[in-house]
Parts: sequence; structure tokens; C-alpha cells
Amino acid sequence: MVSVQEAFRIIESVDARIENEEVDILTSRGRVLAESIMADRDFPPFNRVAMDGIAVQASHFKGSGQLFSIEAVQAAGVAPLVLKDPNNGIEVMTGSVLPENTTAVVRYEDIEMKEGWAKILINSVEAGKNIHFQGIDAKHGSELLKSGQKISAAEVALFASVGKKSVRVFNFPITAVISSGDELVEIDEIPEAHQIRKSNIYSLQAAMLEIGWKSDSFHFLDDKEMVKKSLQKLLKSHDILILSGGVSKGKFDFIPEALEELGIRKLFHQVSQRPGKPFWFGTSEDKSKIVFALPGNPVSTFLCFYKYIKPWVMNCFGIKHKPLTAQLTADVNFSPTLTYFLQVRTEIQNGILLAYPNTGGGSGDFANLKGVDGFLELPLEKSEFKTGEVYPYIPFRQ
Amino acid sequence: MVSVQEAFRIIESVDARIENEEVDILTSRGRVLAESIMADRDFPPFNRVAMDGIAVQASHFKGSGQLFSIEAVQAAGVAPLVLKDPNNGIEVMTGSVLPENTTAVVRYEDIEMKEGWAKILINSVEAGKNIHFQGIDAKHGSELLKSGQKISAAEVALFASVGKKSVRVFNFPITAVISSGDELVEIDEIPEAHQIRKSNIYSLQAAMLEIGWKSDSFHFLDDKEMVKKSLQKLLKSHDILILSGGVSKGKFDFIPEALEELGIRKLFHQVSQRPGKPFWFGTSEDKSKIVFALPGNPVSTFLCFYKYIKPWVMNCFGIKHKPLTAQLTADVNFSPTLTYFLQVRTEIQNGILLAYPNTGGGSGDFANLKGVDGFLELPLEKSEFKTGEVYPYIPFRQ
Repeated sequence: MVSVQEAFRIIESVDARIENEEVDILTSRGRVLAESIMADRDFPPFNRVAMDGIAVQASHFKGSGQLFSIEAVQAAGVAPLVLKDPNNGIEVMTGSVLPENTTAVVRYEDIEMKEGWAKILINSVEAGKNIHFQGIDAKHGSELLKSGQKISAAEVALFASVGKKSVRVFNFPITAVISSGDELVEIDEIPEAHQIRKSNIYSLQAAMLEIGWKSDSFHFLDDKEMVKKSLQKLLKSHDILILSGGVSKGKFDFIPEALEELGIRKLFHQVSQRPGKPFWFGTSEDKSKIVFALPGNPVSTFLCFYKYIKPWVMNCFGIKHKPLTAQLTADVNFSPTLTYFLQVRTEIQNGILLAYPNTGGGSGDFANLKGVDGFLELPLEKSEFKTGEVYPYIPFRQ
Repeated sequence: MVSVQEAFRIIESVDARIENEEVDILTSRGRVLAESIMADRDFPPFNRVAMDGIAVQASHFKGSGQLFSIEAVQAAGVAPLVLKDPNNGIEVMTGSVLPENTTAVVRYEDIEMKEGWAKILINSVEAGKNIHFQGIDAKHGSELLKSGQKISAAEVALFASVGKKSVRVFNFPITAVISSGDELVEIDEIPEAHQIRKSNIYSLQAAMLEIGWKSDSFHFLDDKEMVKKSLQKLLKSHDILILSGGVSKGKFDFIPEALEELGIRKLFHQVSQRPGKPFWFGTSEDKSKIVFALPGNPVSTFLCFYKYIKPWVMNCFGIKHKPLTAQLTADVNFSPTLTYFLQVRTEIQNGILLAYPNTGGGSGDFANLKGVDGFLELPLEKSEFKTGEVYPYIPFRQ
């Protein structure tokens, strides 16, 4: 049995082989960038007018009340005009190029316009005012984004700005999600009294799709020879197996044995945690095949994905795990020498992430996760956890 | 000019016509449930064994060291066996039905097994131990989830448990996203020195797709008659228009005028905020057509989506907006009488959401949002904002 910290470290030390693919920028959101993005020109690409108003030569401003004759209108999307007389001005629109021979923009709010003239109503006009200077955000050729950047809508816009309709993103490893157990039937079957419908492959696949991770799904019946044959096949076609069920101490829990017979070396079996203690993890000798064998209890499977597998795959993409923390809002006792993943509802109040324990009790099934947002990780060293104390937090809602 | 609070209230008071559609449960994640989900049986559906071990009659337990003869093995997925002799036990597997005539499960860890006998190593065996009782999570016919629930992977698993391969979710309104301005060229064009590539429709569409909101995109050139014609067409084909650009005071900013000529009544123009002051909002008389006309500055467009439009559409689905808050980590001064949306990087430390101001300066373009996670909303009533103070926070990364 290993501790939660050891399990995390052991998993993190194994790297999946990660390839990449080119995707349309609109579908790149949520993925991780696999190339660096360079500025193909200065940003902004020209001295850009930041407010509607008139552009003048600041050095020719003498004081409030001064009149500037309007020589022309500089629209956005048009090559820059040239101010002929430094005592005149050019009317300018937000987003347009600053006209040549002008050094400041005075906003409409600060002038009075009439028939070809603008009267300045303010006392000072500084050079550079209301101008976004060429290159202030980035110089031509500089690196705008590094490989390993998680892509939000802001990055999508940046891709567009530099002329990229598609970008390279990291691919998730080829993954099979496998449930097991004779008690499980398909969603669209009517279960016998002693049967239940499969739910773990759906929670796993949905949680994976949340970050863009596609997978194939399979089901094993409780028959060791069949399980072994299927595993052998899947270890050829897939790099990552995520199993759910069949790893406890029960008579039909032969998945660890079958895996070891197929050359998958156990890196740990059992983690000192609740739920999810029977968690098994192993790899092939050359680490090209990675197997997460999770306990079949629905909440265990779910927790193990968010606590271990999601941070692991992001780490494979080069994104370091930054644990969240939340503040407990009630006293909790838990005496077993296990790390306890307490189900909590969370809320940000006054800048503080508060964790309200789910006092439901319940079976560890999904019907029990109603109103739960994540898990607070209460360390095994303690058995009393007090209101106001802060612990690591693993969210599963966004 | 209205305040940020008034703008928010005015927008919130307008409801879009929301329909719904049936989607596969695996693609339902992130959407909002449009039906209630009922338990089609008890959950758990039977008294379920929670640990591998032996099932016995607790009332026949006399003390540590007692031997129980093993009558049979109860596997998961098999109809319940019946314990014949109350002094015997039945070996049981996690997930199996509790055998009839048994009332407690003793874990393998608490027994010694040998040749058909189990020796109990603990001092007490309470009735109900290690059993998840039928219906403890939910009773047959009870409501598991209400319409209006945002769907996470946990809900997907719950759908599977009750036999639903597809569920009804709310549809986003039919929406057009429109950029405007002669200075904008397509992504795959090489811009002239005075031109830039379109980026706002990409940031808007990517931000919308984040919550599953699909839209059509269009571009308007700076020609009032053409703009008006196109708007007229789009107001027939789409219920929601989100425009970017053409709403300032400039000579070519005739979008508000064109909209009003087409019968879209202004509900506000200009919000006392930076960035995003020229924001225009209106609806048709019968409120069936809703128009958000956002300022063209990239960061303004982006901010207005996350601050106003995203909460608005979730509100249309019945999800009340819960503002986040974060703590400022540095003093900030801002004297204009405007609500200031400060660009911040955030981090949770010790349970506290900390907001680090982005000190970049920059142009308000996307190249400037590198390393920024969201906006801290600094109220217009104040001009000095101190380290440690807490303000509303609008995130744009997940």
C-alpha cells in the first residue's frame, strides 16, 4: 500500500508518448498548444488611434480654446494621410492609422466641433495621448505563445491575429476505457433485480471529453481467460488502459493478476485513501503501455480520474499541476489511517473558496453526488479536521 | 450612460426564447438539463455488499475467534443466495446482492479464511455493517435531477444509471456574430500596413463554444446602406445578434442608428466602464430579437461577453448568476469615474483566490492578455484600491 503522495509521484514519473495534430483554431479551445506562436508583424502593426477625435501636433498646442482647422478625415482601414499644416488637425477614427505629422489624439469629449474647425476644451495635449504605439504589445518576430500553453478564447483570437487558421495541439494518448463485472448491463437494457446499468465508462468518458480526450470503451465479464485475452488485444491497439472494477480482494478480482501475466508490471496496488483504496497502477517494461486499474465503486473511479489521471495527462503535455485549496466550513472527524476525500459543495465568498461537507452519507454512487462540486483531501496524519482549516481541493465541475 | 449594475439588470430583464433538443448523454456535458430525471428503481436497487468478505447473521455472532462455515460464494450479478444455517456464512463480493438471511458483512481484513471456514478476528459484528441498503441514495420514482441543472460527468453517469442514452438539454438561441470595420481582413490574407486581421469573431465564437453555443459569423464593411440591408436580413434569420465594432462616436459608427431605423429599440448605449464604454444594447418591440452591439476593441468585446452575455444566456436557462470574488494583491489607482475591469492573473493560495494585476500596459489587444486569467471589477465609486481588498472577479480561463 502506498500513500496518496507516493501514488501521485509514481504516476507522474511515467510519461506517455505524446504526438500532436493540426486542428482548426475554433476547435482548439481547451487543448494544449504544441508549437510556439510568433508575431508575424508588430502588434499593433502601426501607430493606432485609440479614440475617436482629432489628431494634432502636440507641440503646436498653445492652450485651451485653441482652434484647429480640420484638413481631412482618417478612416480605419485606409493608408495614413499626411497633415500638411501643423496648426491644423485631422479627424480620426478608433482603429485608424495615426496620420503622418501628428503626435496626439484629442477625444471628441474634449473638443467642440463646428464647420471644419475643432475647438480644444482641455488645458494640455501631451504627445502620445490616445495612441497605441506600433509594437507596444509585441515586436515582429517575438514569441507570443509557447508550446504547452492551454488554449482559451483569448489565444484563439491571437492565432487569428497572426494569420493562423489552424494550430498544432498535443494529442491525447490512444486510450481504452474498460468496465468490468457480471452485474453490469447496458444503458438501454432493463436490469434484473440483482443487476445495475453501466455508469463508470460514461462518467470516465464524459470527464475525459471535458478536456478533449477521446477514448474507446469496452466491457469485461468476470471470466479470467476472456479478460486476459481481451487485455492482450487492447494492449496492442491502445497505449493507455483505464479499467474500472475487478481490483479488490474478491474472488473475481483477477485483473491485477491477468495484467502481470501479460507483462504489465505493478507500480503500486492499493493507496491509503477512501474511497479508492484498491487502485492498481502499472506499466509495460518499456513504459509504452500504461494501465490505470481503478476500483469499480462509481465515486472511487470518478475521484481517481480527477485526482490522478487528469493531472497526469496534463503533466505529459508539460503543464505542471497546481493544486487548489479550499477552506472547510464545518468540523469533520475521520479516524481510519487513510487520506479521506470528503465530498464537498464549494462557493467563493469574500475571495475565499469555502468547502461545505456533503452530509448525505449514501452509497458512493452517483445519485449521491447531487450538489457535490468536488473532493476535499483530508490527510491521513490527522483524524480531526476543524472549521477554517485549509486542505487541497479537487473540483469536478467547471 | 448607464452603470455596470444597471446594464447588467437591463440585460437580465430580457429573456430569449429558449427551445430544447435531445442529445446523446456523452455530448450533454456542459449543457443545461431541460427535463427532470427520475429514479426508475431504488438506488441502490438492492441491499448491496460494500466490501469483499463474508455475510453472516449479526445476531448469531458471539465473539472474536468464532468460526463460520462457508456455505457458498455470492458473486456480483447473480440473484441472491439464501443462507441456510444462521451459524454459517456466505462469501460475498463487492457489488453483489446481500444473501438472504444475512445482516452484516465482515471484511476479508477482519477474518482468517481456511478450507471452507472463516474465523472472525474482530470483537463486534453489527447488523448493517458494510451494506449499502436498498434506496439509501434515492427511492424509486423520486426526482434525481431538476431541469436547469448544469451537466457534469457526474450527471452523465446518473443518466446512464437510470437508463437514459440521451437527454433533453436547452438550446442556445439562434445567434449571429458580426464584426465590422474596413480595416479588418480575413485570417488567411496578408494585411496591408494599415489593416489588421479579424480576431473578435474568433474570440467570441470560441468563448461561446466553451459553453456549447454555436453561432454563424458575418462581417460588415463601413457602408451604412449595406450594413442596414445586412442587419435587416440577419434580424429575420437570427434571434440574437452580437456585433463587434461600429458603436463609438466615430464618423463610421452608424450601427446604433441603423438598428434603431430597423425597429430595434435602444435599452442603453454606453456603460460607465473601462474598457467597453460604447456598449449598445437593444431589442425589438416584442423582445423576440436581441442585439448586443459591443465595442470593437478586442479586450472590450471579450470582457463584455464574459461579464454580460454569458451570465445572461445562463440566466435564460434558469441558472442564477453567482458572482465570484477575488482578493487584490497590490494597490491599484484608477481615477476616472468608471468601473474599471482590471486584467488579472489569479491563483488560489491557502484557500484564497488572489488576483495579481497585469502591469503590462499595452493596447487592449489580445497579445496583451498573455498570462491574464480574467478581470477584477473595481467599482467607480472609488479610485484607490488596496492590497487585500476583495472585488468581483470575471474569469475567462477554466
